[in-house]
Amino acid sequence: MKEQLFEKLDNAYENMVVIRRHLHMNPELSFMEEKTAQFIHDFYADLGIEVKTGVGGNGVVARVKGGRPGKTVALRADFDALPIQDEKDVPYKSTVPGVMHACGHDGHTATLLQLAKAIHELHEDLAGEYVFIHQHAEEFAPGGAKPMIEDGCLEGVDAIFGTHLWSLTPTGTIEYSAGPIMAAADRFDITIKGSGGHGAAPHQTKDAIVIGSQLVMNLQQLVSRRVNPIESAVLSIGSFIADNAFNVIADSAKIGGTVRTFNPKIRDLMEREIGRVIDGVALGNDCTIEFSYERGYPAVVNHPAETEFLKSVAENILGVDTVVECKPQMGGEDFAYYLEVVPGTFFFTGAKPADPYPHHHPKFDIDEHAMLLAAKTLGSAALEYQK
Amino acid sequence: MKEQLFEKLDNAYENMVVIRRHLHMNPELSFMEEKTAQFIHDFYADLGIEVKTGVGGNGVVARVKGGRPGKTVALRADFDALPIQDEKDVPYKSTVPGVMHACGHDGHTATLLQLAKAIHELHEDLAGEYVFIHQHAEEFAPGGAKPMIEDGCLEGVDAIFGTHLWSLTPTGTIEYSAGPIMAAADRFDITIKGSGGHGAAPHQTKDAIVIGSQLVMNLQQLVSRRVNPIESAVLSIGSFIADNAFNVIADSAKIGGTVRTFNPKIRDLMEREIGRVIDGVALGNDCTIEFSYERGYPAVVNHPAETEFLKSVAENILGVDTVVECKPQMGGEDFAYYLEVVPGTFFFTGAKPADPYPHHHPKFDIDEHAMLLAAKTLGSAALEYQK
Amino acid sequence: MKEQLFEKLDNAYENMVVIRRHLHMNPELSFMEEKTAQFIHDFYADLGIEVKTGVGGNGVVARVKGGRPGKTVALRADFDALPIQDEKDVPYKSTVPGVMHACGHDGHTATLLQLAKAIHELHEDLAGEYVFIHQHAEEFAPGGAKPMIEDGCLEGVDAIFGTHLWSLTPTGTIEYSAGPIMAAADRFDITIKGSGGHGAAPHQTKDAIVIGSQLVMNLQQLVSRRVNPIESAVLSIGSFIADNAFNVIADSAKIGGTVRTFNPKIRDLMEREIGRVIDGVALGNDCTIEFSYERGYPAVVNHPAETEFLKSVAENILGVDTVVECKPQMGGEDFAYYLEVVPGTFFFTGAKPADPYPHHHPKFDIDEHAMLLAAKTLGSAALEYQK
Amino acid sequence: MKEQLFEKLDNAYENMVVIRRHLHMNPELSFMEEKTAQFIHDFYADLGIEVKTGVGGNGVVARVKGGRPGKTVALRADFDALPIQDEKDVPYKSTVPGVMHACGHDGHTATLLQLAKAIHELHEDLAGEYVFIHQHAEEFAPGGAKPMIEDGCLEGVDAIFGTHLWSLTPTGTIEYSAGPIMAAADRFDITIKGSGGHGAAPHQTKDAIVIGSQLVMNLQQLVSRRVNPIESAVLSIGSFIADNAFNVIADSAKIGGTVRTFNPKIRDLMEREIGRVIDGVALGNDCTIEFSYERGYPAVVNHPAETEFLKSVAENILGVDTVVECKPQMGGEDFAYYLEVVPGTFFFTGAKPADPYPHHHPKFDIDEHAMLLAAKTLGSAALEYQK
Repeated sequence: MKEQLFEKLDNAYENMVVIRRHLHMNPELSFMEEKTAQFIHDFYADLGIEVKTGVGGNGVVARVKGGRPGKTVALRADFDALPIQDEKDVPYKSTVPGVMHACGHDGHTATLLQLAKAIHELHEDLAGEYVFIHQHAEEFAPGGAKPMIEDGCLEGVDAIFGTHLWSLTPTGTIEYSAGPIMAAADRFDITIKGSGGHGAAPHQTKDAIVIGSQLVMNLQQLVSRRVNPIESAVLSIGSFIADNAFNVIADSAKIGGTVRTFNPKIRDLMEREIGRVIDGVALGNDCTIEFSYERGYPAVVNHPAETEFLKSVAENILGVDTVVECKPQMGGEDFAYYLEVVPGTFFFTGAKPADPYPHHHPKFDIDEHAMLLAAKTLGSAALEYQK
Repeated sequence: MKEQLFEKLDNAYENMVVIRRHLHMNPELSFMEEKTAQFIHDFYADLGIEVKTGVGGNGVVARVKGGRPGKTVALRADFDALPIQDEKDVPYKSTVPGVMHACGHDGHTATLLQLAKAIHELHEDLAGEYVFIHQHAEEFAPGGAKPMIEDGCLEGVDAIFGTHLWSLTPTGTIEYSAGPIMAAADRFDITIKGSGGHGAAPHQTKDAIVIGSQLVMNLQQLVSRRVNPIESAVLSIGSFIADNAFNVIADSAKIGGTVRTFNPKIRDLMEREIGRVIDGVALGNDCTIEFSYERGYPAVVNHPAETEFLKSVAENILGVDTVVECKPQMGGEDFAYYLEVVPGTFFFTGAKPADPYPHHHPKFDIDEHAMLLAAKTLGSAALEYQK
Repeated sequence: MKEQLFEKLDNAYENMVVIRRHLHMNPELSFMEEKTAQFIHDFYADLGIEVKTGVGGNGVVARVKGGRPGKTVALRADFDALPIQDEKDVPYKSTVPGVMHACGHDGHTATLLQLAKAIHELHEDLAGEYVFIHQHAEEFAPGGAKPMIEDGCLEGVDAIFGTHLWSLTPTGTIEYSAGPIMAAADRFDITIKGSGGHGAAPHQTKDAIVIGSQLVMNLQQLVSRRVNPIESAVLSIGSFIADNAFNVIADSAKIGGTVRTFNPKIRDLMEREIGRVIDGVALGNDCTIEFSYERGYPAVVNHPAETEFLKSVAENILGVDTVVECKPQMGGEDFAYYLEVVPGTFFFTGAKPADPYPHHHPKFDIDEHAMLLAAKTLGSAALEYQK
Repeated sequence: MKEQLFEKLDNAYENMVVIRRHLHMNPELSFMEEKTAQFIHDFYADLGIEVKTGVGGNGVVARVKGGRPGKTVALRADFDALPIQDEKDVPYKSTVPGVMHACGHDGHTATLLQLAKAIHELHEDLAGEYVFIHQHAEEFAPGGAKPMIEDGCLEGVDAIFGTHLWSLTPTGTIEYSAGPIMAAADRFDITIKGSGGHGAAPHQTKDAIVIGSQLVMNLQQLVSRRVNPIESAVLSIGSFIADNAFNVIADSAKIGGTVRTFNPKIRDLMEREIGRVIDGVALGNDCTIEFSYERGYPAVVNHPAETEFLKSVAENILGVDTVVECKPQMGGEDFAYYLEVVPGTFFFTGAKPADPYPHHHPKFDIDEHAMLLAAKTLGSAALEYQK
C-alpha cells in the first residue's frame, strides 16, 4: 500500500510546488490567515473530503475515513507567515509588502494537502482514520494549537505526527529526538522600586542599581544550585536599565530576561525560584520589586515509542545513515500542546537549498524536493501506525 | 579702624543692593561672563583702583595697597550664573531667558565691590595689601580658579578668605569648619565590552550584564573594606544601561558613577582601587572593560589657624551663639584650588529669606541683608589678619 | 552456540556462588589484592588457560583463542574490596576486620571466571579471541585500569564490555546508556592568602573571608553562564574554613570542592574557568590565591554502536521491558579508561536482594542470581560481536 | 588654691609610686579584685574620709565635701588587671602567675588615691563636693561601671572626668576629643542552617556555603550604602566555618564578626540592618539563619563643653602645644556609661616609658611621672569646675 501511496505522491510533487508557490506569493500574518484558510478549505471541498473551518480561530481540519476500522492518526501543518520583507529574487516572491513565508509553513501546507489527497484516493483500502490539521498562528504566542485542541481537533485521535522543513539541514536527512526536541521559552520582567537620591547621600536612598546587581548575582544560583545537573535550564537577563545622571542614585531599575527549559517541573521550579530570590532581595533591601513571568509555548516533548516508530519508518525511506538523532533546540513550537494530549512526535525534515539562509531571514527559502520526502515520511507513518 | 570700616559698609548697603540687583537682572553663564567682567572692571577703574581684567579668562583682580607694610590678604567672589529659568516674581528678576543667578554669586560680587571701595577709602591708614579676586566660572568644571591662579592672582598673597551666602541658613549665622568643608566630587565611566548572543546560548557569550552586576557588587567593598573607617568616602553608581530585547545576552553595558571624598589620599585610593576591581573583573570574565576617571574640583580644606581666626573675627561681630561649626558638605567648590596654594578659609554666611528655596532652584533668592554681614566679616578678617 | 554457552553457565551457577562467597570472606583492599590475584591465576592455570599476572600491578589477564579467526573481545571484572566493616549476619561474612566486598566486585570476579571457563570449553567452535581482564584497584584513584592498559591488556582488542551488579536495581533488569553513564569526578583546593588584622581596621588588611565569598559567588557563573545548557556540570564547594576570633580579619581561608562532568571538553573548560575566576579575584583584591585541581577518573562514555548492540543482546535474553535506558550517574569508574582506547560499553545488571542496601553500606549484599544473568549477557555479547 | 594642690601632689608623688608598685605586684582579675578593693577602702578609712565598699560589686566610692556649697565633681579610676603573664624584669613585677596590670589601672588608682588625699587636706577651703570612683572590672564586659551607677555612685554628681595613662603617647602630652573618643564594640554570631548532601546533587540541598557567601557579600552594603558617609562604622567578619569533605554540600555554616560604631543611632542601624539582610538571604534561599547580636560597651562620647573645659585646664598645666586633639580609637571603655548619665570627658595622658610596649603586652609598663601630670590635670579640673 505504501508503494501506491509513494507513486501517487511522486506524481503529486508538481502540484505541491504549485500550491507552495501560490501560498508563498500570498502570505498572511498569524491570526489573520483568512484567505489561506479558505484556500485550504476549498481544496478539500473540491475533492469531496469532509472539512471544517473556523476550528479554534482560522484553523481547518479535514478527516478521511479508511475502509475498515483502525487507529486515528493526525498529521499537522501550520500555515501562517511572518512580518518580514521578502528579499529573494525569485518568480514566486511574496506579493505582500512586509509579509513573508520565512519559516516554510507554505511548504508544510502544500505537503499536507497533497498527502491528504493521496490518502483520500486510497482510503477504501486503508484501515483507521486520518485527520489533517491545518493550524493557523504558530509564530505568535499564544498560538493556534491550543484553541484548535479546545475546539476538538484531536477528538478520537490516537497519535499525531508533524515535521518542520529545515533550511540548514541537508535534504534527505531526517532529525529526530525522543523526549524534548524544542524548549519552553518564557519571559520575565522585573522592576526594582528603590528610592533615589543624590549620589553623595546613599544612606537616604535604596539604591536600585546595587539591588538589581545583587539580584542578577543571586539568580545565577538557580541554574548552578537548584536545577538537577542532568536537566537543562537557562536563565538569561537581556536587559538592565537604570538610566540616570552619574551623580544620582537610581530610583528604579528594569530587568528583563528569558528562561528556557525542557522539563515542565524544571520550568515550574525556575519560575517559583526566581520569585523566591526576588522576595529575598526585596526583603533584605526593604524595597518593592515587581515581577511578572509570562509563559511562552511549553517544550515539545516527543513520545519515545512514537519517536522510535517514526525513526524506523524514516529509515525505511531514507536509509539509516541519514536518519539521525539530534540534540534538542532552544527554539519554541506550539506543536508542544498536541503532545500534551496525545502521543506522537515532531521531527525535522532537511530542506537545504543551494544558497541556504536561516529561518526568519529575509532571503530564506527551502529546497522544495524536501516536501516530497516529508509527505512520504508522514504518509508512511500514518499508514504503518495502523499495524 | 574696624568701626570706620563698618560705618562705611553700613552706608554702602544700599549700593550693594543696587549692584546685586543689576547683576541679578543680567546674568551670564560660566565662561561667558564678559559684560559682568566689564562691569566689575569699570567699578574699580572709576574709583581709580588698580584693576586687571582677562585674568585666567574672564577673571578680574583689583589691588589696594595700605599706607604701610603688612600682609597681603586676598578676598574672593565668584560672578557666573546658571542655565536655569528664573521663576521668581520680583522686580529684579533675570531679564535673560534661561539664565539666572540661582546661587548667589551676584550677591558675592556686590559685597566684594563695596567692601573694596570702603577699604580703598581707608587705605592710607591700613597696613598691608588687599587683593580682590573676582572669579568667573565657578559653576562649571574645570572652573575659573585654577587658570586665575596660574595667571598670578595669588602672587604675594599671604592668606585668602571667601564666603558663600547660604539661602537655607538663617541670616546672622556664620558656619565654619576647620579641615574639609566641601567634598571632592569626581566622575567615572565604565564600559563593559562583553560578547553578546542569544539568550538561550550563554556559553557562546560573555554576559555584560552579569559582569556588570559582579562589578557593582565588588565595588561595594571599597568603602566597606579599603577605606579607613575614620575617613569619609562615597562611591555611587547612578547609571547602568544594557538595553536589549529580553531574549538576548548583552554585548555591552555602560556604568557611570561618582566618588566623593575629603582626604586626597582617600581620593587617590578610590581611583586606584576602582581600577583594580575593574582589572580583576575583566580578567576573571575574559573581557575588556573601559574605565575613565575624571576628577572634579578637589575638596575645600580649610586651614585650621585661619579658620580659628575667622571664627573669632565672626564671633566679635555676631556673637558666639551664631558662629557655629558645621559638618562638611558633599558639594564641590573650586575655592579648593586657592587653599592648595595659600592658607585661608571658606565659610557659609546665612542668607535665608522669608520664603527660602535651595540653591539652584528656579525660585532661589537671598536675604540681601546678609551681604552686609558678609562684607563686615570678610572686611574684619582682612584688617585683623594684619595683627 | 549461545544455547550451549547458556547451558554451561546454568550448570556453573553453583560454582559462581562458591567462588563469590570465598572471595567475600577474604576481601583485600585496593592495591593490596595479592591473594585474590593468585586465586584468579590459579583458576586459569588449573584449566590450562593462558594467564598472565602482575599486569600493571596486581592485574590478571587470561586469553582464550577460538578455533577460527575473528574479532578480539575483552570482558572486564574488578576484584578489590573496601575499608568497611562487614555488618551482615550471613555465613559468608567477611573474615577480615574492617575490610569488605561492599561493592560487588567479588560477584564480578566469580561471574567472569565461570564465563571464561565456559567459553574455554567451547573455544574450538568459536571465532575470534576472548580476553578476560581481572582488574585490581578500581575503588581508589588512580586505579588499576590505567596501568593495566599501559601494560598491554588491551593489545589487539576490538571491543570491551563490562558490567556492574547493582543492588538497588531489580534482578532481571539491565540498564544501559549510549554516551556518558558515569561522571568524571575531580577535586579542587583553594587557599586564599589575604592579610589579616584587627576587625576594626579593615583598610590595613586584605579580608580573606570577603575575598573567599566573592570567589564562591563568582564560581556560580561557570555552570550558569559558561557551560552549554545542553551539557551537565556540577561545581560544589564542600568546605570553607577561616577559623578566627570574631573581632579579627581573616588572614587566610581554605576552600575545597568537587567538579562533576560527562564531556571531557566541559571538564577542561571547568578547570580552566575556575582558574580564570580565581585569577580575576586575586587581581581585583591584590592577594595571592593558591589553586590545585586534581583529576579523578574521567567519565565513562559508552560507544553508541556497542551500546545499541549490547541492548539488543540483552533484550534477547531478558526481553525488551527490562532492558532500559538509564540517566547517567554522578559516581566514578575507571572503566572509563578502557573506553578511551577501544569501543565498548559499560552497563548495570540489576542484583537487588530481598533486603537491599546501597553500595558501600556495611550491610551491602547482592542477589547472587544476578551473576548468572551478567554472565549470560557478557557471554552473548562476546560471541555475537563476532558476527 | 591650685598652687597648694599642686604642691601637695608634688610631695605625694613618691607615695603614688609606692602604691602603684604595690598594686602592680598584687594584681587581681576583673570581678575578683577583693584585696585591691580592701586596700583602697583602708586608705580612705585611715584618713577618716567617708568611703563605701561593695558598690555595684567590688566598687569603692569615697566622698569629700568642701567647706562651702558648689558643684559635685566625680573622678574615676579603674583597678582590675588582666590574665597576662608579666614578662618585665623589674623589682615591682607581678607576683601573681598569669595575672598582670598590663593596662595601667594600677597607676590610675595610685593617682586618684593621692589626689583624693590632697583634696581632702584642702577641703575646708574648697567649694562643692568630690566623688572618687574606684571602679572594678573595666576589662571584662559587662563591666563594673554599669552596676556602680545603678548602685548610686553618680548620685548628685554634676560632672565626671577620667583619664587613661597611655604607654605609646609621650609623657607631657594630653589627648582629647570632643564627641566620640572610643568606639562601641559589638559581637554577632550567625548560623546558616541549610540542608547538606552529596556534592554531585546540589538540587537536593540548600548549600550553606553559597548562602553564607551571599550573606557576606550583601553585608558589605551596610557600610557602603546604608551608613551616612560622614559617620564611621565597621562590620568585619572574623570567622566563616563550614568544615566538610570536598565532595559534599555543607549542611550549615557559622559566621562570627564585630561591629564598631561611635554614634548610637548608627549602632542601632547596623544591628537592625544586619538582621534585615539576614532575613532577606534566608527568605531568598528558603533556609533558616540564626542571628544573635551582643552589645559590648557603648562608645565613649565626650561632652563638648566639658572637653573644651578640660582642654583649657590642661593647656594651663602643659602648654598649648602638647594638648592635642586626637582621632577616635576603635577600642572600648565602660567609662561610656558614666557619660550617658552626666556630662564629662575622658582623655588620654601620655605615659611613654623609655622602652614602650602597647597596652596588654606582657612587657607593658608606664612612665610613672605621668601619674603626677594626670593627678594635676584631674585635680585642676575638679577645682576649676566650681567656677
